[in-house]
Amino acid sequence: MQSQKKINFASDNAAPVCPELMSVLQSENDGPALGYGNDETTTRMEHNFQDLFGCDLRAFPVATGTAANVLGLSVMTPPYGSIYCHRLAHIDGDECGAPEFYTHGAKLVLLDGDDGKLHPAQLQSALKRSNAGNVHHVQPAVISITQANECGTIYTPDEVSAISDVAKKHDLGLHMDGARFANAIATLGCNPAEVTCNAGVDVLSFGATKNGAMSVEAVIFFDPEKGKEFEFRRKRGAHLFSKLRFLSAQLERYLEEDLWLKMASHANKMASRLETGLRGIEGCNPVYPVQANIIFTRLSETTIDDLENAGFLFYVMGPKDEGDVRLVTSWNTTEDEVDQFLQIVAKNGLSA
Amino acid sequence: MQSQKKINFASDNAAPVCPELMSVLQSENDGPALGYGNDETTTRMEHNFQDLFGCDLRAFPVATGTAANVLGLSVMTPPYGSIYCHRLAHIDGDECGAPEFYTHGAKLVLLDGDDGKLHPAQLQSALKRSNAGNVHHVQPAVISITQANECGTIYTPDEVSAISDVAKKHDLGLHMDGARFANAIATLGCNPAEVTCNAGVDVLSFGATKNGAMSVEAVIFFDPEKGKEFEFRRKRGAHLFSKLRFLSAQLERYLEEDLWLKMASHANKMASRLETGLRGIEGCNPVYPVQANIIFTRLSETTIDDLENAGFLFYVMGPKDEGDVRLVTSWNTTEDEVDQFLQIVAKNGLSA
Amino acid sequence: MQSQKKINFASDNAAPVCPELMSVLQSENDGPALGYGNDETTTRMEHNFQDLFGCDLRAFPVATGTAANVLGLSVMTPPYGSIYCHRLAHIDGDECGAPEFYTHGAKLVLLDGDDGKLHPAQLQSALKRSNAGNVHHVQPAVISITQANECGTIYTPDEVSAISDVAKKHDLGLHMDGARFANAIATLGCNPAEVTCNAGVDVLSFGATKNGAMSVEAVIFFDPEKGKEFEFRRKRGAHLFSKLRFLSAQLERYLEEDLWLKMASHANKMASRLETGLRGIEGCNPVYPVQANIIFTRLSETTIDDLENAGFLFYVMGPKDEGDVRLVTSWNTTEDEVDQFLQIVAKNGLSA
Amino acid sequence: MQSQKKINFASDNAAPVCPELMSVLQSENDGPALGYGNDETTTRMEHNFQDLFGCDLRAFPVATGTAANVLGLSVMTPPYGSIYCHRLAHIDGDECGAPEFYTHGAKLVLLDGDDGKLHPAQLQSALKRSNAGNVHHVQPAVISITQANECGTIYTPDEVSAISDVAKKHDLGLHMDGARFANAIATLGCNPAEVTCNAGVDVLSFGATKNGAMSVEAVIFFDPEKGKEFEFRRKRGAHLFSKLRFLSAQLERYLEEDLWLKMASHANKMASRLETGLRGIEGCNPVYPVQANIIFTRLSETTIDDLENAGFLFYVMGPKDEGDVRLVTSWNTTEDEVDQFLQIVAKNGLSA
Repeated sequence: MQSQKKINFASDNAAPVCPELMSVLQSENDGPALGYGNDETTTRMEHNFQDLFGCDLRAFPVATGTAANVLGLSVMTPPYGSIYCHRLAHIDGDECGAPEFYTHGAKLVLLDGDDGKLHPAQLQSALKRSNAGNVHHVQPAVISITQANECGTIYTPDEVSAISDVAKKHDLGLHMDGARFANAIATLGCNPAEVTCNAGVDVLSFGATKNGAMSVEAVIFFDPEKGKEFEFRRKRGAHLFSKLRFLSAQLERYLEEDLWLKMASHANKMASRLETGLRGIEGCNPVYPVQANIIFTRLSETTIDDLENAGFLFYVMGPKDEGDVRLVTSWNTTEDEVDQFLQIVAKNGLSA
Repeated sequence: MQSQKKINFASDNAAPVCPELMSVLQSENDGPALGYGNDETTTRMEHNFQDLFGCDLRAFPVATGTAANVLGLSVMTPPYGSIYCHRLAHIDGDECGAPEFYTHGAKLVLLDGDDGKLHPAQLQSALKRSNAGNVHHVQPAVISITQANECGTIYTPDEVSAISDVAKKHDLGLHMDGARFANAIATLGCNPAEVTCNAGVDVLSFGATKNGAMSVEAVIFFDPEKGKEFEFRRKRGAHLFSKLRFLSAQLERYLEEDLWLKMASHANKMASRLETGLRGIEGCNPVYPVQANIIFTRLSETTIDDLENAGFLFYVMGPKDEGDVRLVTSWNTTEDEVDQFLQIVAKNGLSA
Repeated sequence: MQSQKKINFASDNAAPVCPELMSVLQSENDGPALGYGNDETTTRMEHNFQDLFGCDLRAFPVATGTAANVLGLSVMTPPYGSIYCHRLAHIDGDECGAPEFYTHGAKLVLLDGDDGKLHPAQLQSALKRSNAGNVHHVQPAVISITQANECGTIYTPDEVSAISDVAKKHDLGLHMDGARFANAIATLGCNPAEVTCNAGVDVLSFGATKNGAMSVEAVIFFDPEKGKEFEFRRKRGAHLFSKLRFLSAQLERYLEEDLWLKMASHANKMASRLETGLRGIEGCNPVYPVQANIIFTRLSETTIDDLENAGFLFYVMGPKDEGDVRLVTSWNTTEDEVDQFLQIVAKNGLSA
Repeated sequence: MQSQKKINFASDNAAPVCPELMSVLQSENDGPALGYGNDETTTRMEHNFQDLFGCDLRAFPVATGTAANVLGLSVMTPPYGSIYCHRLAHIDGDECGAPEFYTHGAKLVLLDGDDGKLHPAQLQSALKRSNAGNVHHVQPAVISITQANECGTIYTPDEVSAISDVAKKHDLGLHMDGARFANAIATLGCNPAEVTCNAGVDVLSFGATKNGAMSVEAVIFFDPEKGKEFEFRRKRGAHLFSKLRFLSAQLERYLEEDLWLKMASHANKMASRLETGLRGIEGCNPVYPVQANIIFTRLSETTIDDLENAGFLFYVMGPKDEGDVRLVTSWNTTEDEVDQFLQIVAKNGLSA
């Protein structure tokens, strides 16, 4: 059984490392270098981010998406603060309480919102009930949005700006979980600054691991001053690597020659192909608009079994007989893999 | 200036990744794998540790030595507990409060001890004054020792056992920071179990990063039950890698063909060569017994300048005119590098 | 203006201290006594609780209701745990994140439920989605219910037992916030054990401050073993009083001659009188069943103004023109005060 | 045995409440009052502190000395900060890790110093080794001194100023644990501002419990701005009393008619009488200068037994046969009690 080839629609982080980033690890490994970021690669990497966003930011590499999110948030909220996010946000549901740990107990306030997105009116309404200034209640400190989000949809620059207006009005910081930021930019086709710093984002988790890296994300502070505190929090969170240059080298290469966008574009294109195929099969319409590399749909139990038997990896989100599944495409998903998947789904046709 | 070749006596973690471990990253990168440790490499890696220590342990990969230490400690002490360690322990002086963060505020109690080692009598005496059971005082929970330690000396199995006796008598856990565990075993020549589980150690940080890995340490729980809690703490500490297999693969290869011991033996041998040379130069006798790959000595300011100008990297521990320096050898230190270093020191002779 | 007499329907904790408890402070103040609970009054107090509940419990005095709740909870959940409670629970909405602080970051999971009560079926359904055992998610640890709750309704012994069954099935602790426990027992007319230890409650905040005390609550551990850890957590929470005997003395007297029940019965009776009056006025029907000493109703803005001008204190829960108000009766509320209140409400009649 | 009258030299917090403060509780208990500090007594109390110190400060009542210290410190240091204090400081040795809990893990750096006092030169030297700005190390944030301190000695205004100079030079806050502040001022005879705000103190724990109150201390912020954050931290620490007016009333009365100084002067006078007596008995010279109401001396085991048999309460600091004892006088210690004590000690004469 183990020898059967697995085809990954489970997660973009179950994909292998792309050759360009594997190769850069090799080339970085040339002689000694001072540890903990005091190396030349880390300096160059930060400059590249400054060039990309066109502003005087700080960029810090960490090794996991959760670390990027919670270290960023820990600088943005006091322990008695609250973080407004979508009910489906990764920071609430999938990080085992890491935000609460790193912020020393800040509270996540969960909001509904179509397609996994926060909407300004709902934020306004929630903040009106927040009891800001009242000592009996946690104090609103941050709004956190995910781009591309957990449902696979995307905020436009205007949508981010509208949320930022709410944030500013209530004196809150704006955080963006960009574990799949590349997928969002690949779809939006805009400069990354347009949907972040220029739209009011303060801190960005700039993901790479889900898009071909071995394990690296950058935490971007668009206000360089805030970066100073970050460094102490990263170290005491045990996230400062001695051989940091190997993280920095991945990020440096990731930005070169638009590698990050090329890989994300491919993953998005495969998701689009999958979407088109599913729309042609009765009962299989995606639940949310497909704007990045994630598709939620519903399959029959038989179809799920058939797919699993054929070696496909993917998440069944609840009881198998309810059939809710999540499909994620990656930088290395092939057209052929998509088509094989669709073929099996189509075969069971209306039985779905 | 940048083109000058640097010769690293600064730290073993400033050395590059050894070819065997770089190569295993490449070979591991073959197709998709389920994330977060649900891959076959991680399973094999843990079995290899069980074989090495000859017992039913749990082994968890994390990416930094600080993470290994503080996640281990966080399972061993309540927030109102205290951790007894040497005044020079890495967990107190070099982790920016990470132990306090991960244990939610446990207190480190600092003890003196020759050559960077804790001694049973001093521990006994300190624990007598600990007010165990008294609600006004933090409660002794853990003894933490470093092997090889911050002064470059080593505990024998008997010494560890004697400390474990004190720990058991006071119902404390025994933690070992083994960032340089390989260097200790290379010198002791014993089975690793003799100086850990068989000598009463409960949790071990089994280091690899300082000995040729890119960034990986194993946290070893000799009581597998405790491992369950560890997994939640690792995740909320943001230290669970999605592509964990690349950490596991390094550890797996590290244990194969005694790679870990071969590399550590080489580093130790280079330290020994350096020691011999220094002992022949007046005023340069090492401060502590040289038992692993670290040497503390004293050099004149002129010598320090000359060495730095020649491209040598090393730490000056205080004001340069006091001349206290730390020299660390690595898996890739060469005899030639040692000899060049000694030549410059010898040149300044009695001026030291 | 300041000389106008205020009539308190704002909160039972805005009422004065009852004469019996004020008097006991005086009598306790006779000579020295060892501090921190090593006094005889504290010992007697605990025995009285053991007699009341008929079991071998531990009872610890603390000075605030929030302290009672969060210190109790801190013993019941690991930092990576979660606490299931009603969306309106005091621990979520009115303690400024104290539960997160004391538990080091556990997550409160908020559930809906009619009349401010948790219902077994909803708990079951939520726990089914809790991902227990999965390392990416906080782990269910505690169910917390309020008795009498924030809406002024009460759990019967059978209802508590049914919740306890769910707790046991999922291996969770059951916590009861009894800031108004006396009001609940006064209505239920049962032995307090029936609705707590005998019904599966593990830890109880036994309130007194809202029912005539100066500032004291008891944290009751029905499993005495758990009490040991509590004492360290209370001390490091800075809640161990040196002159603890003055807290203990209040609790001791509170239990004597059914003082606690007499005062709560009076408060409940006044709420009942208020309810009857309101039901006779169009548009003023209470929102929830009136089972303790809290009534939520809706008043016109004019009525609110008239009441405030007449010296009545009470909380307007949102914008004044929406008219949602909370009325709380106390041990010292008089029939006359209720009738005066009703008279003003009735005067505005249908204009409401 | 229980009927034997106990004579308290154990602690000033084992003394009863003084009549004036007991009486004010009674008079405060007149009708309802809004909770949580929204009452007129609390407002007046704060004004009285502003008058006493002659500046625009904030004064917040809390119920325990530990709460006062740790809540104050929690505003002054980031979680990755360090607090420099004397090795004997109450915050390190007697608060069960409360400072670490409330600061979320800041580290206490323990310094030696004659007579329980910090000295500028030692502070300077320690801060030189603190690695400020280096990400591997906790960052110096606060110096905390105790006035009167744990050895019963006192800082002069000049000594506080000299420490403040060091603090300012290193950009640190200066905290004063004034659990026995009244005893210090009674001895110094200066205006309290001279040894606090005018000498550079930022935050003061202004104690009352050890000097006749039931349980209240004020946390004084000489920078009113910092007070805002304090209020949230007090609430989430569960230290905001609903019936706060009873704490405020004690503080208000405590300051009136120099009650606080009269009581402390009496306690100091009794300590002085005790000191004089002890100096006349061979081997009984106090260990530290007696400047407040605490005396450390050495007694023979026989004497200790005799004193205990006669009903005297006091702390034996180590093994009884070593004979180290601490004697504390209180607002209600009588000359007769002192003389009885001395008589028993003298009786055993040279056998000591």
